[in-house]
Amino acid sequence: MAQVEVLNGGAAEKAVVAFTAVKPQLVVEAPKAGDAIEFYKSAFGAEELGRTLHPKRKADQELPLVLSAQLGLAGTTILVSGCTDESAAPVKTAGTGCVLCLETEDVEAAVAKAVAAGAAAEGELVEGDGACCGGCVGKVKDPYGFTWLICSPAKKCAEAE
Amino acid sequence: MAQVEVLNGGAAEKAVVAFTAVKPQLVVEAPKAGDAIEFYKSAFGAEELGRTLHPKRKADQELPLVLSAQLGLAGTTILVSGCTDESAAPVKTAGTGCVLCLETEDVEAAVAKAVAAGAAAEGELVEGDGACCGGCVGKVKDPYGFTWLICSPAKKCAEAE
Repeated sequence: MAQVEVLNGGAAEKAVVAFTAVKPQLVVEAPKAGDAIEFYKSAFGAEELGRTLHPKRKADQELPLVLSAQLGLAGTTILVSGCTDESAAPVKTAGTGCVLCLETEDVEAAVAKAVAAGAAAEGELVEGDGACCGGCVGKVKDPYGFTWLICSPAKKCAEAE
Repeated sequence: MAQVEVLNGGAAEKAVVAFTAVKPQLVVEAPKAGDAIEFYKSAFGAEELGRTLHPKRKADQELPLVLSAQLGLAGTTILVSGCTDESAAPVKTAGTGCVLCLETEDVEAAVAKAVAAGAAAEGELVEGDGACCGGCVGKVKDPYGFTWLICSPAKKCAEAE
């Protein structure tokens, strides 16, 4: 595999690099990208800001390949991309991986809305012991295999049965 | 497994749920959490905002369990958590998964700095065809198994050999 050469490791180490945004990118199986975008709108109220389709795939295939859709959610841009052969993401071992934590004042309603849209709730709402944002935490798994923690910023949990 | 009951699916579907933040949480093997935090500071200039340790593990184990460290990066909070038995994340299949895209004006320097800190560059810098933020894209894999896309917002790529 080709590697980018580090031409000047010393200088690079000291360089001040400014980042202007962090955008989680959810890579899903290509034919499911369109559905995934609709799901995130419905489950979390994400707003579609733009969608880039593969130029060659548009014409000759039934389902256009979504290279990247930009979804706005709580001031963050989340990217949803159809998986292509070249964009293979790493296989994580069980127990490790990237999950997305959504902060809200109303965890119970947010979990219920996500479940109504097709996510699966995992476990009960629990008081976070520091594992997430510190407050009440609910967990849902979406139909595309991603886990979302839905948590409140403060130490308050609605009465969950 | 216990499931959160959807008591009133209809109402939930219509509920307006406001999210105040999206925080990517990187779950790493518990003994590596401290190293991972240092790596993200060194590689990306993340700033540690806070760290919550497991109260019971602090006293009787050599390495305290990091329940959650909050790292500030480009206005976003990234959480780094040590994996506990209860916090199992899903195993993703090859090609799909969550990657984090970092936007910067200087992709080349950012990739070089990450590599100097211990990340592995994957492939050359390429002009994005829409797969990410639309500009120049570099890809690095960090020592904890996470893939980061480092991309410029506009269509400009430094001369990469």
